[in-house]
Amino acid sequence: MNKQIILAKRPVGLPEKDTWKLNEVSIPKIEDGQVLVKQLYVSLDPAMRGWISDRKSYIPPVQIGDVMRAGAVGKVIASKHPEFEEGMHLMGWGGVQQYAVTDGKGWFPVNPDMMKLPTYLSALGMPGMTAYFGLLNIGQPKEGETVLVSGAAGAVGSVVGQIAKIKGCRAVGIAGGPEKCKYIVDELGFDGAIDYKNENLHAAIKRECPDGIDVYFDNVGGEILNTALSLLNMHARIPICGAVSQYNATTPIQGPSNYMALLVFRARMEGFLVMDFAKDFPKAAMEMAGWMIEGKLKSREDIYDGIENFHETFLRLFSGKKLGKLVLKVNEE
Amino acid sequence: MNKQIILAKRPVGLPEKDTWKLNEVSIPKIEDGQVLVKQLYVSLDPAMRGWISDRKSYIPPVQIGDVMRAGAVGKVIASKHPEFEEGMHLMGWGGVQQYAVTDGKGWFPVNPDMMKLPTYLSALGMPGMTAYFGLLNIGQPKEGETVLVSGAAGAVGSVVGQIAKIKGCRAVGIAGGPEKCKYIVDELGFDGAIDYKNENLHAAIKRECPDGIDVYFDNVGGEILNTALSLLNMHARIPICGAVSQYNATTPIQGPSNYMALLVFRARMEGFLVMDFAKDFPKAAMEMAGWMIEGKLKSREDIYDGIENFHETFLRLFSGKKLGKLVLKVNEE
Repeated sequence: MNKQIILAKRPVGLPEKDTWKLNEVSIPKIEDGQVLVKQLYVSLDPAMRGWISDRKSYIPPVQIGDVMRAGAVGKVIASKHPEFEEGMHLMGWGGVQQYAVTDGKGWFPVNPDMMKLPTYLSALGMPGMTAYFGLLNIGQPKEGETVLVSGAAGAVGSVVGQIAKIKGCRAVGIAGGPEKCKYIVDELGFDGAIDYKNENLHAAIKRECPDGIDVYFDNVGGEILNTALSLLNMHARIPICGAVSQYNATTPIQGPSNYMALLVFRARMEGFLVMDFAKDFPKAAMEMAGWMIEGKLKSREDIYDGIENFHETFLRLFSGKKLGKLVLKVNEE
Repeated sequence: MNKQIILAKRPVGLPEKDTWKLNEVSIPKIEDGQVLVKQLYVSLDPAMRGWISDRKSYIPPVQIGDVMRAGAVGKVIASKHPEFEEGMHLMGWGGVQQYAVTDGKGWFPVNPDMMKLPTYLSALGMPGMTAYFGLLNIGQPKEGETVLVSGAAGAVGSVVGQIAKIKGCRAVGIAGGPEKCKYIVDELGFDGAIDYKNENLHAAIKRECPDGIDVYFDNVGGEILNTALSLLNMHARIPICGAVSQYNATTPIQGPSNYMALLVFRARMEGFLVMDFAKDFPKAAMEMAGWMIEGKLKSREDIYDGIENFHETFLRLFSGKKLGKLVLKVNEE
C-alpha cells in the first residue's frame, strides 16, 4: 500500500492538523514510459506553505484532494522507461507519499555512493541551488565584501554563508537561539552570528557587520529585512529568497517600511526563483560537490521518521525547532 | 537687499507657514574666486521635504537658520572668478534667495538663447536628468515594452513617459485628475493615462497596460507602488525615484506589502540618485536638447512669482495643484 499526505483544506494562518489527511491507496501499476519510485526521503520546505494558499504565485497552488507537493529522493523499483533502470536512485517532485509513479520528466539520477541520499534534498538539492544562484547571480558578492544572511542555520542560509566564505567575503548569519548561532560559527565557519531572539537586531548587525552590509540574502522578511535595509552599504544587493516570518500571516503581510533606503544607498532588491537556473544545475552541483569533498561546504540534515508525522514535522519549519535541512523519511533505504 | 527663505524649525507632517521665515540681509561682497549671482528662478521639488527632516539620508539635512536648499538659475552680476564672467547665466545650488555668492563649485553655464531659462530647472535640469538616468540606466526599457510612471504630469514623470515613447515603448502615466490625464496623452503623447483620484487603480492599470508592466518608474510610493507590484511582468524593473505620497507622513511610512511580487515575477526594485550620474549630464543634456528641438520632448513649467510666496507655492508639490515643473521666480530677468 502507498501512504500519501493529501491536502484536505486550505489553512488560515499556521496549518492545523486537519489541513492534510493521511490516505492509503494501492501502489499503482506503471505503463510504458513510466517508472515506479519507492520514495525514501521527502523534503520539507517553507515554500510549501505558499503552495497550499489559493492565490496566484510562481506555481499553481496544490488542489484540495491532491497529494501534497514536495521534492523527494527514492529508488526505482519498477521501470518501463528507456533511461531509468530498476535500482537507480532518482530525485524529483514525488510529493509527500511513499511511492510515486512518473514519466521521468523533471527527475534526475543521483549517486548514493558519492553522497548520502538526504544531501540531494539539501546542499546538492533545491536549497543548495537556491543558495548558489541567489547569492552568486543575484547577490553578486565581491571578495572582501560583507554578506549577511537570515535563516542562517537553515537549508538555504547555511549554504549561502559558506559560499560567501568560499568567495572571500565576511559571512554573518542571523539565527534564532544560541545553539544555532554557535553552530553556524563553530561548525560552518561563519565570521559572525546574530541571535535575533535574544539580541537587539540593529546593534547586533552593526557589531557583526562593522563595514556595513554589501549583500543581504533575505529568507525571512518582516522586521529583519527592515532593519537590514537601514544598514546597507552603497550599491548593496538584496536577493529576495523568501519571507518565512510572513507565510502564516492572517493579516496583510508587513511590507518593508524602510524600502526608501534603496534610494539612500542606491541599492537593489531583487526576487529570484531557483527553477529559472535549472539549465545550470548540473554545473553548480558539480562545483558544490567539489567544495563538499574539499571540506569547504557542509550539509546538515535534520531527519524525522514516518509519513504519519508529516504535520508535526512540517511545523518545525516555522517554530524553528530544527537544525539544518528538514527531511522526512518515508521508507527504509 | 537680498531676501532669503530661512529654515526656522523642523516640521512635523506637512510643513506649516512658520517652518520658514523670510529674512532680509545685505547683498554680500564677493572675494577673489567668487561670483555674485542674481537669481531669477528657483526650483521647488518634493525632495526638499526630505532635506528639512533631521535624519540620515543621501545628503545632510538643511540646518535651522540656513537658507533653504534649492537649485536655481540666475545671472552673474559681479565676478572675481576666472571662468564665470559678468552677464553669464548659471545654474547651481543657489538656495531660496534672491542673490547667491559662490566659488562656482557645482555651478554650470546655461544658454538663455537656446532654451528659456526655467527649462534648465526642468527637462534640461535635475528633473530631466533624473528621468533620463532613472529610466534608461535603472529601468532599462526595451523597444515594445510597457513603461508605467506615477507622478506622470510632474517634472520627472512627464519626461520619463516621453523618453519611453522615444525608445519605442508603450508609455502609460498615472496622474491626479482629468486635466493632468488629458495633458499627458494629448500634449505629451503618452499612450494611456490613469486618474488615480477617480479610478480603481488595479482595473485601470490592467486596462492601460494590457501586456503587463515591464518598467514601473515610481515617484510616489504607497498604494500605487503596491498595486503596480501586483501587475508586473516577468523580470520587470522598478526604479525607485521618490515616494511623494509618504514624505509628509507622521506615522512610519507604508512599506510595499506586495514586495514578494518581486519573487513571483523575478523582478527588481532599485533606488538611484541623479547626482551619481553627474559626469554624464552634459551628454544627456545634449541628447535631451536635441529631442526638444526635434519636437519629441516637451518641457512645461508652472511658474509662480515672488519669494514671499515660497510657502504657498511649495505646498502645491503635495496638493497636486500644479502642472509640470514647479518654479518660483524670485527676480525679474
